[in-house]
Amino acid sequence: MEYDGTGYKGSQYQGNAPTVQGALERSLRSLTGEPIRVALAGRTDAGVHALGQVASFSTTSRHSPEVMVRGVNARLPRDVVVRAAAVVAAAFDPRRWAQSRWYRYSVCNRPVRPALDRYRAWHVAGRLDLEAMQKACAALLGRHDFAAFAPPSQATRGSTERVIYTAQWRRLNAHVLQFDIEGNAFLQNMVRRIVAALVDIGRGKLAAGNLAEMLRRAVPGTASAMAPAHGLYLIRVRYESGLFDDEANEDV
Amino acid sequence: MEYDGTGYKGSQYQGNAPTVQGALERSLRSLTGEPIRVALAGRTDAGVHALGQVASFSTTSRHSPEVMVRGVNARLPRDVVVRAAAVVAAAFDPRRWAQSRWYRYSVCNRPVRPALDRYRAWHVAGRLDLEAMQKACAALLGRHDFAAFAPPSQATRGSTERVIYTAQWRRLNAHVLQFDIEGNAFLQNMVRRIVAALVDIGRGKLAAGNLAEMLRRAVPGTASAMAPAHGLYLIRVRYESGLFDDEANEDV
Repeated sequence: MEYDGTGYKGSQYQGNAPTVQGALERSLRSLTGEPIRVALAGRTDAGVHALGQVASFSTTSRHSPEVMVRGVNARLPRDVVVRAAAVVAAAFDPRRWAQSRWYRYSVCNRPVRPALDRYRAWHVAGRLDLEAMQKACAALLGRHDFAAFAPPSQATRGSTERVIYTAQWRRLNAHVLQFDIEGNAFLQNMVRRIVAALVDIGRGKLAAGNLAEMLRRAVPGTASAMAPAHGLYLIRVRYESGLFDDEANEDV
Repeated sequence: MEYDGTGYKGSQYQGNAPTVQGALERSLRSLTGEPIRVALAGRTDAGVHALGQVASFSTTSRHSPEVMVRGVNARLPRDVVVRAAAVVAAAFDPRRWAQSRWYRYSVCNRPVRPALDRYRAWHVAGRLDLEAMQKACAALLGRHDFAAFAPPSQATRGSTERVIYTAQWRRLNAHVLQFDIEGNAFLQNMVRRIVAALVDIGRGKLAAGNLAEMLRRAVPGTASAMAPAHGLYLIRVRYESGLFDDEANEDV
């Protein structure tokens, strides 16, 4: 699924607020006549976008996946769309079966605020040292305890060890910087806390050594700043090869 | 100026509808206390975006351009922003002094509609032959009578001769195609009529020779199809070098 998170209070169902899950379930119910519950691969906060969220559900409907896609897209609001569908094993769990998640974060780095991308990128007005931000990424790679980048409440919630496969900044054009990070899984708000820390390094407010030190000390809530939700995109959730056709995600 | 045209009934002032000119004039009046009228370099339709629209006005305010930019941006709605300002000659006319205009058109070419770019790109579901579209651009280059790409009403409005300097398609990623066109000036809806014709060539509904023939016959309204407004961006208006600092437009 692709969605613009601007109009939603996040991905997960809430009875009295617009959510991506709610929109999808309503469309599926309208299409199939069944009270369908969907499971999502990744929880996204209010304002966070997705190009490749994954949802699964059970249905007795005998429509082909292609017919389901057309039917549900005709019923979904314009800011949510299903890009592709496949029949999977009944045991499939989009969250547990995921091998990795790839997120992207967009920063608009120029003196004046963006108008076109006002809901699509974080505006950072001051000068950023991209090289310092890129160098600091090295500390994130591999298996670490990411407790420092978890909410303070994380202390009671089990393992905070995660594996980061890639963490990389690139300059898209004169004003837009993009951060791509892929890992086996992420703690709540972990990407937004990492981005805030890296941007603080880019501003010269934090040394790269501080980030490594926060990782080592592993105290939940240490990285207290969070980059705003609207710069974040869930780009892709990867599964064992062959589980889906991946064509839908070639456009990033 | 940069703006998201989605919420506006076009660039030009209308008493009872939101327009870019209206928003800018209201902000300038609030900042200076003067009833300022602005002149715009290019007229953009409802839904058309801009990264580099140019506006000029006279004021007795003695604020520096930098202070004016900050002040007016604090007052403008979030979907409009002034990127840079400069003091120019009193005789400056942003439309007449312009040496060229550069427009970009975005096409989302995939089976399912876009959610994130629903107001930012034209969704064309069927397969497009990009090579044929690119080849057909050759006929547009140089000085031609573009009457065929003018509204039927153009017949009574003077010269339809224009000069096109560049006309080029590129594939941004697996699903997004971008068309860049720069010319000395454009007739009303000319870019949208050209894009619709080129996309018809890409669909195999029109031969490249038909486009050349329409140009030769030069009958207003011949290219009757128009690509939707929301895929179009006014990227830049060029003036004699040195008139402004061009830094604001490096991000395209």
